[in-house]
Amino acid sequence: MSEVLQKAKLAKAASIQMNRVSTADKNEALLRMADHLITSQLSIIQANQLDLDNGRKNGTSSSLLDRLALNEKRVAEIAEGLRQIAQLTDPVGTLLQTIDRPNGIRIEQLRVPLGVIGMIYEARPNVTVDAAGLCLKTGNAVVLRGGSAALHTNKRIVEVLHEALESSALPKDAVQLIEDADRKSVDEMLKLNGWLDVVIPRGGASLIQNVVQNATVPVIETGAGICHTYIDQGANPEMATAIALNAKVQRPSVCNAMETLLIHQDYDQAAVTELLKAFHDAQVELRGCERTLQLAPYAKQATEQDYATEYNDYILNIRFVSNLDEALAHISRYGTKHSECIVTERSSEAERFLQEVDAAAVYHNASTRFTDGFEFGFGAEIGISTQKLHARGPMGLVPLTSTKYRVTGQGQIRS
Amino acid sequence: MSEVLQKAKLAKAASIQMNRVSTADKNEALLRMADHLITSQLSIIQANQLDLDNGRKNGTSSSLLDRLALNEKRVAEIAEGLRQIAQLTDPVGTLLQTIDRPNGIRIEQLRVPLGVIGMIYEARPNVTVDAAGLCLKTGNAVVLRGGSAALHTNKRIVEVLHEALESSALPKDAVQLIEDADRKSVDEMLKLNGWLDVVIPRGGASLIQNVVQNATVPVIETGAGICHTYIDQGANPEMATAIALNAKVQRPSVCNAMETLLIHQDYDQAAVTELLKAFHDAQVELRGCERTLQLAPYAKQATEQDYATEYNDYILNIRFVSNLDEALAHISRYGTKHSECIVTERSSEAERFLQEVDAAAVYHNASTRFTDGFEFGFGAEIGISTQKLHARGPMGLVPLTSTKYRVTGQGQIRS
Repeated sequence: MSEVLQKAKLAKAASIQMNRVSTADKNEALLRMADHLITSQLSIIQANQLDLDNGRKNGTSSSLLDRLALNEKRVAEIAEGLRQIAQLTDPVGTLLQTIDRPNGIRIEQLRVPLGVIGMIYEARPNVTVDAAGLCLKTGNAVVLRGGSAALHTNKRIVEVLHEALESSALPKDAVQLIEDADRKSVDEMLKLNGWLDVVIPRGGASLIQNVVQNATVPVIETGAGICHTYIDQGANPEMATAIALNAKVQRPSVCNAMETLLIHQDYDQAAVTELLKAFHDAQVELRGCERTLQLAPYAKQATEQDYATEYNDYILNIRFVSNLDEALAHISRYGTKHSECIVTERSSEAERFLQEVDAAAVYHNASTRFTDGFEFGFGAEIGISTQKLHARGPMGLVPLTSTKYRVTGQGQIRS
Repeated sequence: MSEVLQKAKLAKAASIQMNRVSTADKNEALLRMADHLITSQLSIIQANQLDLDNGRKNGTSSSLLDRLALNEKRVAEIAEGLRQIAQLTDPVGTLLQTIDRPNGIRIEQLRVPLGVIGMIYEARPNVTVDAAGLCLKTGNAVVLRGGSAALHTNKRIVEVLHEALESSALPKDAVQLIEDADRKSVDEMLKLNGWLDVVIPRGGASLIQNVVQNATVPVIETGAGICHTYIDQGANPEMATAIALNAKVQRPSVCNAMETLLIHQDYDQAAVTELLKAFHDAQVELRGCERTLQLAPYAKQATEQDYATEYNDYILNIRFVSNLDEALAHISRYGTKHSECIVTERSSEAERFLQEVDAAAVYHNASTRFTDGFEFGFGAEIGISTQKLHARGPMGLVPLTSTKYRVTGQGQIRS
C-alpha cells in the first residue's frame, strides 16, 4: 500500500474518533500543541536549517527561503496562532435549523466535521501548523502534503504535534504528513475519493491549477487574484491615492493586492499625474494604455497578456476607461472573482459596481487588501476561496464543516 | 465554435442580466412558462411521441419509456411545478451577516446567484422544466444536457420556454439546451471552467461517476443511495415492521429506499420471521447472512458484492449483527452517506447512531424514504447531494446560490 493511501486510511479512522471529541478536549489539545512547539523549538529550527541549507544549494530564491525560514520569533508566532484557534467558537454541533413537519417528524440540521481534509501547499512550515490546528478544531483529520523543500521542518513539526496529541484526548493519527517528495504523491491524493472528503490547495497558480485540473475529490479552489481598483470621475483624490497605493505596495506578493488600476477618463488629471508619480517613486513598474504613456513617460505599453497576469510584484497595469460599463467589462474579462474595488463619491455608481461585479469581495472606498480572514474578524484563515461553491472569500472555521440532517419520528412512514 | 461552448457563452452573458432581475419579474416569467406549457401541450406531446416511437424501436425498457412519456396530466403536473416554484421565497439578496470592524469598514455577506449551472441528466423531460424553473428562480442561467432519447421532447419544451421568456423581463438565453446527442458534448461541458460555475448530474450511478471522474468544473454529486435500516434489540415490532417495509417496497427504484436491513441478534424472533415473510409476500427477493437463511428458507446467501450494491429494485440484503458497533461498522463500510435509520426504544443507542453515522440524513424511528426536498418542506428539489461540500441532503433553492461580501468604507487602508 502506498504511503498516501496508508496515511489517508489512518486519517479516516481517526476522523471517526474526532467526530466524538468535545470542544474542551480539542482546545486542550491545541494548547498542548502550542506549548510543545515552544519547548521543542530548538529541534524544529535545527531541522529547518537543513531545509534552508538545501534550498541555498539548489538556488532557491530569497523570497522563498524567507517563507521557509523559522526562528524563535516565528515559532512563537505559529504557537500563538494555535492558542488563538483554541479561543475561537467551535462551529461543530451548531443547530442551524429545526423543521417540524405536519406528519410529526422533526428535522434538525447540524454542523458536523467534513471528515478528512487534504491540504496541498508549498514550502511554508507555518501552514503545516495552521492547517493542523484549524482542521482539529473543527473535528476533522488532515492529510498534509507540503512542499518538499520544507520536508525536514515539516517532519519535525508533525513529530512534535504527535507528541503533544499523545498526551491529549485526540487521536494522533488525525494529523498525517505525506513524506513522499515525488509529485505522484500529490496526484494520488487528488484521486482519493472515499478517503479524502475535500482537497484544499494553497499556493501559486500552477499548484492550484494542477489540483483543479486533476482532482476527482471535491476541491476548494483558493488563491489566484487579479484584483482591480476603479477610480471614478469625481473620486476624492486623497482617498483614491491612499487606497490605490495601499492596494499595490503595502504587500505586493499577496493575492488581494491590486494588479490593474482602472481610472475614469474624467478623473482629476493633476491627481492622476501625482498618483502615477507616487507609484514610480515606490519602485512600481507601470504598464499602461496610450493615455497612461502620455501622462507617465516612464511607463511601458501594457499588453493583453499583462492585463491577464497576476504579478504579485512591483508591477501595475493602468488603464483609462470612459465609464463604469467599460470598467465592469474589463473586470469581467480579466478578473479572477477575488476582490474588486471602486473609489467613488457617487452612490449610484457604487451601488451598480457592488451589485454587478462578480467577485468574492467587492469594495466601495476601501482597499482590496482587507480580504483576509483576520481582517474580516474570523480569527483564522485556511485560505481565500475563489470558487462559488461551499465557501467564497476568506475561510475561517465554518467552511471546514459540513451539515447533517437528524430526523426523529415515532414510526412515521411515507405514503 | 462548438455548440456547447457557444451556448455556454450565451448563458454566461444572460447570467449577468439575470443577476439584475427582480423577484417579481422572475415569478412572472415562471408563471408565463407554466401557462405556455399548457397552451402548447399538444405540440409537446407530439414531439414526445417521436421519442417514444424511437425508444420502442430501440428496445428501451418499459420503465425508461414510462419516465420519458408525457400526456396531458403529466404536462399539467410539470406546469404546476413551475407555479409552485414561483411561490417559494427567493433566497437571492438575503443578508446573511453584517460585520462592523473596529476600523470602520462594514462587511455584508449576501446571497447571490451561482451564475451558470450545467445540468446533466437522463431522458426525463420533467427535469428539463424543473431545472430551468429552479435555476431561473435563483437568478442563474442554465445549460441543459438531457438524455438523447428525450431530444425531440426537450427541444420542443425549450422552444416553448423561450417563447414564454420572450414576453418576460428575463433573457431567453438564460435557458440553453444542448442538442448534440454525442457523449462528447457532455465531456466538453465537464471541462468548461470559466463558463460553467457548477455541474449537477442527475441520474444513475454511471452517469454520476462519469461526471465526478471527469469534471474540472465544480460538481454537486447527487444520488447513489445504499441506505440501511437497523432494528435494535427491543425495538417496537409493529413500528420496525412498518418502517422496514416502507423503506423497501413503497418505491424501491429511488435512492432513499433501503438496500440492506440490519437486525440486532436479540430482536424479537417471532417479529423477524413475520417481517421476512412480509418481504417475501411483497415479492422482495431476500439475500441474507447464515441466520437469515435459517429463518427464511426462501432467502439466498448474500455476498460481499450484494452489500455494496444499490439495487433500486425488489431485492433486499438482511444481516444480523451482535450490537450497535457492528451495525455502525457495516454502515461505515457499505453505506454511501445518503440516509440511514435506526429503529429503537433505547435513547442511548439512538443518540450514538445519530451522532456517529456519517450520512446526509440520519433517522430515528422514521422511514429513510423521507429524504426528499418536498418531504423536508423545501417546496422544491434539484437533487439530493451525497457530498459534503456546499450542500448535503435534499437541495431546494439555497444550494443554487453562492454568497458575496460587500465591503463599504470611508477610505480605509491596511497598515
